[in-house]
Formats: sequence, structure tokens, C-alpha cells
Amino acid sequence: MNIGIVGLGLIGGSIALDLRSRGFNIVGVSSRQQTCDRAIARGVVNDASIHLSLMATADLVFICTPLSAIEPIVQKLIPHLSPDAIVTDVGSVKTPIVDAVSALWPNFVGGHPMAGTAESGIEAAVRDLFVGRPYVVTPTAQTPAQSVEKVEEIARLLGASVYRCGPQEHDRAVAWISHLPIMASATLVAACDREGDRDIVNLAQNLASSGFRDTSRVGGGNPELGVMVAKYNREQLLRSLSIYRDSLDELMGDIQAEDWQALEQKLKLTQQAREHYNL
Amino acid sequence: MNIGIVGLGLIGGSIALDLRSRGFNIVGVSSRQQTCDRAIARGVVNDASIHLSLMATADLVFICTPLSAIEPIVQKLIPHLSPDAIVTDVGSVKTPIVDAVSALWPNFVGGHPMAGTAESGIEAAVRDLFVGRPYVVTPTAQTPAQSVEKVEEIARLLGASVYRCGPQEHDRAVAWISHLPIMASATLVAACDREGDRDIVNLAQNLASSGFRDTSRVGGGNPELGVMVAKYNREQLLRSLSIYRDSLDELMGDIQAEDWQALEQKLKLTQQAREHYNL
Repeated sequence: MNIGIVGLGLIGGSIALDLRSRGFNIVGVSSRQQTCDRAIARGVVNDASIHLSLMATADLVFICTPLSAIEPIVQKLIPHLSPDAIVTDVGSVKTPIVDAVSALWPNFVGGHPMAGTAESGIEAAVRDLFVGRPYVVTPTAQTPAQSVEKVEEIARLLGASVYRCGPQEHDRAVAWISHLPIMASATLVAACDREGDRDIVNLAQNLASSGFRDTSRVGGGNPELGVMVAKYNREQLLRSLSIYRDSLDELMGDIQAEDWQALEQKLKLTQQAREHYNL
Repeated sequence: MNIGIVGLGLIGGSIALDLRSRGFNIVGVSSRQQTCDRAIARGVVNDASIHLSLMATADLVFICTPLSAIEPIVQKLIPHLSPDAIVTDVGSVKTPIVDAVSALWPNFVGGHPMAGTAESGIEAAVRDLFVGRPYVVTPTAQTPAQSVEKVEEIARLLGASVYRCGPQEHDRAVAWISHLPIMASATLVAACDREGDRDIVNLAQNLASSGFRDTSRVGGGNPELGVMVAKYNREQLLRSLSIYRDSLDELMGDIQAEDWQALEQKLKLTQQAREHYNL
């Protein structure tokens, strides 16, 4: 079985490394010749090219580009694909991608391997990146069942825990646990940045510790990623943000009213609720 | 020099361990005989008692109880204190403590060693807990200068980095970097808990990863601690929360209006601003 990888970055390169070590023939496409050369030199792929025609022999193609490039890449890829080829992606938002790409190529299976490191690019690709991590597969009623099973089989070969749900369910769930945290965390830093007294700002910067560090971490991350999730998962993110804002208002109301019993009750529920997450 | 420690928990016990190893005579008071016995058995103190009269020989007394117990303890302590004794505390909010305790004992120096572990109690006391950590000392215009210098000298002996500021400056700074993060983080978990669809909740709990884990950590902590900081630092916390809510509204406004340029600008500023914190 031939596996195609379009986009030889951290995710594409890591999928390629793992599957090559399991005996698959891997062909890769990158927009940059230098990346193709490095992918071959590192043994990530059997062959690589800047031309999508290399995908003609692929039975299964992973699109591993940023979200905004997925649909245009698939459009350019279609003339080169074998009629039975399965196409899948690794994008972190699913509804708009699945809608757009399924219309172009019905044999498309939306996917989201939830793994990563702070690094990016082909040099960051590593083996076993997906071991024990969730891999969400998001078929629709029209997605060919055999293709869904094939993508899930490959995900399990990567050592991932496979979850199957609809694209909208995925987007709603990741709005809560991935996209809302980015916005709540960024807002923390943005708010601190509005303190007008320079002495207080300096003191706060010096006294900041693990609590601030952890709570502000994802908000201080890649701005392009934050914009991309907001753009592609706008509806679900706004819904989560709006519920977050209501919860914030209630908590502020308790503090304003000095209702310490109500506040304690909320913080107890929070402590209990957090224990149900797979952290 | 005799050092008194009232409250033999993580902080009091750790101060005692470090200072005893530097040759000070350490006397400790706990409300529980069992804690006194353990403190002596572990070599944390030279002597310990459930009676505040043990503090009669102390030149410097650290009050290491929860915030709400500081003022009542000092009231009971005063009949036993030597006239020249310096009293200091380790409470995480300073204005109400400094106001109340200075009125009872003018030779009081507010302090806040910013260190801790997830553990508590005398068994959790460890050496070098304060090495490289901030130790804020919060005198007022009326605090005797020699006493401030003495407390700072001891803080430096613990290996801490000493910061001196007024009680209100301290409380405003920690509202930003310590108390607001607790509330923003707790609100994240509280909001997720309002998702009405059980399938989405289950999926979110399974997919939650390091981003959710870090952003929700301090919000899922000790509810009593959260209530205590809200109660004692209410005014500064409400001010920070109100600025946080304004920042949240602006960020939501950008997403609502699909103003991706404005959102990217905000997230870029956030990324840059975070780099100025001592994390």
C-alpha cells in the first residue's frame, strides 16, 4: 500500500516516519524543494517532490497542510489522484473542511490526530508522536464506510486512540477543551497588559509564578494558530465564549455580593468537574 | 537570636527547617499537640507547644496560619510577647492584615514568601523551599525601619529574592498574576460544565490535553484558598476581573465581526507581553 503525504511538517513528517517503519511505501509532496530533499535525507519518505503528480500511485493521501490550504490543495490534487484513492486530512477544525473537501472528492475522511510539540517543520518530525494520543475521525453519512475503517486502521497503527464522531461534534468538543482555553488564556495576558501603573506591572512581572505561567501558556502561543481556529470554528467558539462570559459574570456577582458560600460552592464544583477530564 | 513560628504547616515548617540549619533557636506553636510532637521529632524546631507563652523568648515571630487566623492569633499572642519582639506574617494578601495587625502591634512587618508545593502540613515542610523565590515585604510609613531590615535579612538567608513595596501595591500585583488566574481558570471549567449535550461532554473529557490541563489547573485547586483570596483581596480582584471582562468582550467582538486582523494583532501583543514575565 502506497501512502501519500502532502505537507511535510511536524505532523506529516511524523506520520510518514511511523508508517515507513511499518513497511509502507511513502511518497511526500512539499511546496519547497529543500523540504523534499531533507525528507528524503532523513529517511522520512521513500520519495518526495514539489509536484502533486507524485500522488498518482497513492492509495491513501494525508493532507497535512495548515487549515486554509487544505481545500485549494485538494482541488489541485484531484487531476492526479487514482479513482479509488482515499483522501484524509489532519486539520484541527472539521466542519468547514469536511463540507468543502467531500464536495470535491467524496472519498474523503476528515481526521484530527491530537498531538504536537512546540516545534514545527520537517526537522521536528519524530517517531511515535501519536502513541496514546486521541485521533478523531469525522465521517458524515455519505463517507464510504470502508474508507473510514482504513483511516482508523492506520491511526491505530500509529498507536493512537481512535474516536469517531461527526464533524460538528468534534468542533463543539474542541471549542471547549482547545479553542476556548486559548482565548481565556490570551485574555488573561491582555488584561494584565492594561494595568496602567508601571510599578505594579514591573512587580507583577517579577512575582509571576507557576499559576500565571500555566494559565497564560496557550494564550501566549502562535497568533496565526489562534486566528485560524477562531476563523474556522467561529460559531462553536463564540458559543463557548458566550457561556464562559456568563459563568464569569456569575462568579464576579458572587464576589461583588460577598456571597462566599456561593463562590465556595462554585469552586468545589469546578474542582470536582476537572477530575473527569483525561489529563 | 530566637525565632518563633506560629503555625507549623508547609510554610512555617519550611522556614523553621532552614533557619534552624543556620543556627537559630526555633520555638514553634501549633494548635495541635500532634503537630508539635512531629515538629520536634522531625527536628524542625528546638521546642514546640500548643501554648503561645512559648513565644515569650522570641525576638522575631512568624505568623504562618491561614489569613483568617492571623489577626485573632496576634491578639492572643500580645500578652506573651517581649516588648521588642518583631512580628511578621506570610499571608498571601497584605492590606487588611497589615492594617489590622499594625494597629495591635506597631512592630509588625507584613511579608509574603511566594513559594509552595501541592502538599500541606508539617510533613510537607522541606529545606530550601524559598530559594530563588520572591519574598515580598510590605512596610507602611509607620513600620520601624530596623524591623523591616531584619525581616529582609532573614528572607535573604532563606535564599529568597526580596521585594519591598506597600501592602496595596502587593495586593494589586498579586491580583493580576495570582488571583485573577484562579478565577479565569475556574471559569473555564465551570463553562465547560454547562455543555448540555452529554456526548459532547464525554468527547471533550477524552480529548482534553495539555492546553486544557494547564489553563484549568489553578481553577481546579483548593476552593477554600480561592474564597480566601476573593474575600481578602476583593477590591483589587474585582478591578482585575472587570478589566479581564472588558478584554474578553473586545476579543469576542473581533471574532463576532470576523475582524481577523484585529484578533491577530491582539494575539501578537499577548505573545510579546507574556515574554516580559519572570516565568
